[in-house]
Amino acid sequence: MSVGVNVVAVAGQPQLLSYDGVHDARRRIAGRVVHTPVVRSEELERVAGARLWLKAENLQRGGSFKMRGALLAVEQLMGAGSRGVVAQSTGNHGIAVALAAAQYRLPAVLVLPTDAAVTKVRRIRETGAEVLQAGTTLAERIAVVDKLKTTRGLDEIDPYQNPGVVAGQGTATADLLDQVNAAGGRLDAVVLPVGGGSAVAGACLATAGQGIDVYGAEPSAVPALTAALRAGGPVTVDAHPTIADGLRPDRIGQLPYALAHDTVTGVYTIEESAIAEALRLVLVHARLLIEPAAATAVAGALRLAAEGHAQDIGVLVSGGNIDTSLVASLLNHQPT
Amino acid sequence: MSVGVNVVAVAGQPQLLSYDGVHDARRRIAGRVVHTPVVRSEELERVAGARLWLKAENLQRGGSFKMRGALLAVEQLMGAGSRGVVAQSTGNHGIAVALAAAQYRLPAVLVLPTDAAVTKVRRIRETGAEVLQAGTTLAERIAVVDKLKTTRGLDEIDPYQNPGVVAGQGTATADLLDQVNAAGGRLDAVVLPVGGGSAVAGACLATAGQGIDVYGAEPSAVPALTAALRAGGPVTVDAHPTIADGLRPDRIGQLPYALAHDTVTGVYTIEESAIAEALRLVLVHARLLIEPAAATAVAGALRLAAEGHAQDIGVLVSGGNIDTSLVASLLNHQPT
Repeated sequence: MSVGVNVVAVAGQPQLLSYDGVHDARRRIAGRVVHTPVVRSEELERVAGARLWLKAENLQRGGSFKMRGALLAVEQLMGAGSRGVVAQSTGNHGIAVALAAAQYRLPAVLVLPTDAAVTKVRRIRETGAEVLQAGTTLAERIAVVDKLKTTRGLDEIDPYQNPGVVAGQGTATADLLDQVNAAGGRLDAVVLPVGGGSAVAGACLATAGQGIDVYGAEPSAVPALTAALRAGGPVTVDAHPTIADGLRPDRIGQLPYALAHDTVTGVYTIEESAIAEALRLVLVHARLLIEPAAATAVAGALRLAAEGHAQDIGVLVSGGNIDTSLVASLLNHQPT
Repeated sequence: MSVGVNVVAVAGQPQLLSYDGVHDARRRIAGRVVHTPVVRSEELERVAGARLWLKAENLQRGGSFKMRGALLAVEQLMGAGSRGVVAQSTGNHGIAVALAAAQYRLPAVLVLPTDAAVTKVRRIRETGAEVLQAGTTLAERIAVVDKLKTTRGLDEIDPYQNPGVVAGQGTATADLLDQVNAAGGRLDAVVLPVGGGSAVAGACLATAGQGIDVYGAEPSAVPALTAALRAGGPVTVDAHPTIADGLRPDRIGQLPYALAHDTVTGVYTIEESAIAEALRLVLVHARLLIEPAAATAVAGALRLAAEGHAQDIGVLVSGGNIDTSLVASLLNHQPT
């Protein structure tokens, strides 16, 4: 992968950002993350017209796959003598960093947008970590983080730029591939939700050399990866309202972009109604409560299946942290 | 187990109704049922104050653990040259028999109550099987089944009296014990929902000789096992309305009673509000959609945990077939 050279220069920790790095990360977090199941549903697959292998990271500690990268990153900082961590997040990375930091009795400050899911803010506070809410854009959160780094001497765990985080997120896809193989299957493609880009970047590492297509799925309201691929680099997009609170970052991270831009096969942009419908389908047919970000990936998988190019599709069901009022509202307003 | 002698006389298939019989059943259905995960949730366990090992049979084929017994029973009847099957059910056994029969291209007629969950009726019809709805009591359904057996030459697969069904249902608990052991745990108790009694009877077989307490949990609206244990045998109880449609049978089966009555450690009767609350807790914290029958067992486990007698509690999360309108209503009316 030619971008590997750039990444090394950017990151300073080349060994992590590779297929082997992801597998090393897996060994390091084994036993401290939940070995989540891969769920299939006959009813859902009948709707899809393809086999859907759902990596149920909604059942992960902290309710999302972000626990993986956060554990690695906090562990590294502890080893370096950190006195406290700070991170910006739409919520799930914040929950994961807060839980990992609590495990090491390390102070943690999390910077979330003002429109973060109430459930996510509450879960972070339950760990004893501090939550600051600042604006709705990535730039506004980063400004607060930069200030806290200098004024309070905190170490940053960026959700998109930290190599440990990206390699850690890749372990979800690595697990998925192993679980599908163990069940006698063989994936044609994986579909990942795209917010800041760590999931899709991690998947590019985890699938390297295996002939598996990697697709991103993002809300059409915030098409940050689509725009970046078109512009030849990360750009800030106009973010319109989306129920997928986890996918609201209006700009792809530089590191995820470097890792993914010439590896991803395609990116689906998903309308709000399709996100809601995918969430309902997974709830009713696969009996899993997932958050809209995860539903965005499922909706992408349904599009891929409908196009007929893939029969075995892995989906990163990234998380399950959703306000119950939103679930009720989606169930009350389902199309007849 | 002293009742074993009686059971042999009742059933005519003694080998099935034993610990070894359940393990033989497991081997026979392996690969044709989903190896469902055992899910734990830190948040739910914080609420419970104990470790809860949720056997997620809501992720089973047909959406419930009843697939296990139905596969065994249909297979036996196919071997005996059956030309079609009939079964009474509150819904899940019906879905399971319909799916198993469809697999063998065997006609199936399912007799459900008039107040069956809409989702369950629909799922049966989707398999191509015939649904008849008759009254709301067990006796009314049995009368229809008896008639169909003679007029249409169908073989009955009773959800409570068929030894293959009871042994098959026991495989869910056998799997659960193995999965907990593989994770380094050790159960103090298992809690099963009680409708006609096959789950708790199967669990008594699967836990035999292992020093694990077996608890039933039934709606206080339909306390059929509690009444049977008090009366010294199955009696028909007044059935009041309950959201736990799967637990509406107003009388415990004779066979489950014989297997369970001197083995069960206790039976919890659960109020409607506690069933609803357990369903919400599992949805929000464990991110699993479960039906009220399964929530009844979870509520029983919460009671057992609160009493402080068990630290590791296995719960048969029996199914996940629930009308979305009920889910929405439960989420809209949650206590503040």
